[in-house]
Amino acid sequence: MGSIVEELESTLGREKVSTDETMLAWYAVDQAPVLDYQLPIAVVFAESVMDVQAVVRCCADMGVSVVARGAGTGVSGGAHASRNSVVLSLERMNRILDLNPDDETAVVEPGVINAVLNEAAAAHGLMYAPDPASFRTSTIGGNVATNAGGLRCAKYGVTRDSVLALDVVLADGSLIHTGHQTFKGVAGYDLTGLFVGSEGTLGIVVGVTVRLKYLPRDVHTIAAFYPDFRLAASGVLAVGRARVQPAIMELLDGGTLAQLDGIHGSDLSSRGRSLLLIQTDGFGAAAEADVVRTVLAAGGALVTTESSAEAEQLVELRRNSRGVEVDDEYRVGEDVAVPRSRLVDYVSALEAMAAAHGVNLKVVAHAGDGNLHPTFWVDRLDNAVDEGAMNRLNLALDASIAAALEMGGTITGEHGIGQYKLRWLGLEQPEPVRELQRRIKELFDPAGILNPGKAI
Amino acid sequence: MGSIVEELESTLGREKVSTDETMLAWYAVDQAPVLDYQLPIAVVFAESVMDVQAVVRCCADMGVSVVARGAGTGVSGGAHASRNSVVLSLERMNRILDLNPDDETAVVEPGVINAVLNEAAAAHGLMYAPDPASFRTSTIGGNVATNAGGLRCAKYGVTRDSVLALDVVLADGSLIHTGHQTFKGVAGYDLTGLFVGSEGTLGIVVGVTVRLKYLPRDVHTIAAFYPDFRLAASGVLAVGRARVQPAIMELLDGGTLAQLDGIHGSDLSSRGRSLLLIQTDGFGAAAEADVVRTVLAAGGALVTTESSAEAEQLVELRRNSRGVEVDDEYRVGEDVAVPRSRLVDYVSALEAMAAAHGVNLKVVAHAGDGNLHPTFWVDRLDNAVDEGAMNRLNLALDASIAAALEMGGTITGEHGIGQYKLRWLGLEQPEPVRELQRRIKELFDPAGILNPGKAI
Repeated sequence: MGSIVEELESTLGREKVSTDETMLAWYAVDQAPVLDYQLPIAVVFAESVMDVQAVVRCCADMGVSVVARGAGTGVSGGAHASRNSVVLSLERMNRILDLNPDDETAVVEPGVINAVLNEAAAAHGLMYAPDPASFRTSTIGGNVATNAGGLRCAKYGVTRDSVLALDVVLADGSLIHTGHQTFKGVAGYDLTGLFVGSEGTLGIVVGVTVRLKYLPRDVHTIAAFYPDFRLAASGVLAVGRARVQPAIMELLDGGTLAQLDGIHGSDLSSRGRSLLLIQTDGFGAAAEADVVRTVLAAGGALVTTESSAEAEQLVELRRNSRGVEVDDEYRVGEDVAVPRSRLVDYVSALEAMAAAHGVNLKVVAHAGDGNLHPTFWVDRLDNAVDEGAMNRLNLALDASIAAALEMGGTITGEHGIGQYKLRWLGLEQPEPVRELQRRIKELFDPAGILNPGKAI
Repeated sequence: MGSIVEELESTLGREKVSTDETMLAWYAVDQAPVLDYQLPIAVVFAESVMDVQAVVRCCADMGVSVVARGAGTGVSGGAHASRNSVVLSLERMNRILDLNPDDETAVVEPGVINAVLNEAAAAHGLMYAPDPASFRTSTIGGNVATNAGGLRCAKYGVTRDSVLALDVVLADGSLIHTGHQTFKGVAGYDLTGLFVGSEGTLGIVVGVTVRLKYLPRDVHTIAAFYPDFRLAASGVLAVGRARVQPAIMELLDGGTLAQLDGIHGSDLSSRGRSLLLIQTDGFGAAAEADVVRTVLAAGGALVTTESSAEAEQLVELRRNSRGVEVDDEYRVGEDVAVPRSRLVDYVSALEAMAAAHGVNLKVVAHAGDGNLHPTFWVDRLDNAVDEGAMNRLNLALDASIAAALEMGGTITGEHGIGQYKLRWLGLEQPEPVRELQRRIKELFDPAGILNPGKAI
């Protein structure tokens, strides 16, 4: 038996295996901060289920780890290469195998881009609902691996809620099919749900059957400016109390508005210290928007009038804000979620922390489901590493995690644990719950070759 | 150490343990046909989490099985007593521990009745969405155990979609908490989803955190009569093609209409051979109902005009039809689901089977999600067992299961495998998938004391 690279090349063909240094470096990491940089032994570009099976079998035989990867847009390090690993790219498996407008389902390979599936669905008046900010570049397989969320989850659910069935290559290279083609199905244990969000540690998803939903005919967008963030957060609860379920409810603080102004030359900051962006959709969109406008105005907001082109543009700005910045050692983004009633308290706590630790703060939130993305940052000083600043940043970060848990929240609403958030997982989940997950991992992957050191 | 009954009585107190013959017989079965009648050793009425832990520990120590049970309204035998078992009733654990209108969540004990939770939620303009036909009597714990569906699932999701977190007593008597209090949360594997629908075979659910949804302000109901069932099933697809998502879409065939007429003295049969009942809700309910009426009329239906009190009454009849009849050896009900586009084909196949095997057929369907409840029956002859009729019934039943699977369907859309449907599970799931589930079961319950012989 030759080296793992020789085995892969002879099994798959040279055109699917790369050991080029630039490629290895590119595929060594996703978009998360790196805690333990490892260069993979090789990158393999699978083109079929059989390719994936062959890679897993080769790696299992030779005791090499497999790190499956879609577009590498993850922000928790779930696709960072592990030590002694092959990175298995699923980008080339990008076919929509079936899209049945009457069944309202689609079957896709894992490398299909979220936006591409949505475009195909839109031709039939349908949509694939989960819409992470990375939707133009991220893959359905990656979305499944992280149980991705997005802007419209409070109304339409997260990835798990749209996945009906999966084809999965297990750690021994065998292929199984889980779930059902129908909307409902309760035969046996929910293996599908177990694989969704497992970040490639239990098996490698090579096929996904999703439920599609109806593309709304009508969409109304409202922008509401507030004198402060806390009042804006109260607006979120007020909309809830009016029992209106918006499709999108995004909360942006002053720091975020200033940043948008800087990039786009807008004058948002001059109009308020915080912005609540709400979109209603469906047959009741107009009526819902009326209620929302009334409720927000009563709560002290300056609300845009009906069918505001500007409000729509703001949602697009928010939707596409991903990629403007990537976290590094001077800037750390989070993904906590808290019960909706604690939004105001949590934001107050964040502001106090930032002040106490002398770091900058900006916050955006998928406010409809209490999912916040605060960012703490410090200014970089002449490229010199400022140890004091780093410490302050980490203290603020740890404090913000502790506060979220204290309020009944979670350390990750939609980005996943990956590698980066493992250090906090023990704060959220006690040892017996973690041990149960380790044993499930061991059951599915006794040799521990599937994306080791991630997710649990 | 005394007998299991002595142990239970001394640990829990006599008032929580019954060995009364009538009680044992009552708690020996749920509402499903019985394949293997077993009387439990005792029935225990837990009043707290600690009680449940004590029961599980006693049973584990003495090698006795535990069959957890809510209201016993299941129709697959998931709560039938096993050999050498104690039935653990959770009916007395019926407190709503928390209902937070701003968080839009509730925390309940497992014995809370579905309708009771809905009543409490309604006071705040909220609802617990999953609405099995048994909602007036079944418990949230039982709903979780079977991942119960209902009428409004196509729009609002099944039980799993409303469950955020669980408290579970494991097979060793230890207590864990899974999931998150927030709408979103992706920390670690989805243990919550694994317990939902596992029919008490992996652990005993002693606490449930659910997400509530908004009680719709406006509801419109449409009754559409058709000359035949197949045309009515086409109406379901036509509504889908109009991209309207009704809250309820129930399909009733001629046999069902005749039965309703017999019970309620109505004249439904004279007005059509099939009935499609549709309810739209929310801010867009009126506009959606307009589209639905237009589409259905164009498809050959006789459609009731707006805000029809009769249509609403019909939905209530349908909603409350559970309990009118219970399956026995002369009547077998099913719970298959097929992809929506196959509804028409499947109903045709059912009609052909009934004719071929000389048995009666009636069908109701949660048509929005392709979930059908066909019932085959034969007339009972003077209380004498008619072996030939029994055979014909079983042949029709097996044929209907095979046809559903052939069309890409599932053998159980919402009732669960329980004990009754185990014989067909191998037709839907190949051996490797079943083996994986057995190993998960073994991981959670190595001694096999939790509801053995069910679900997988």
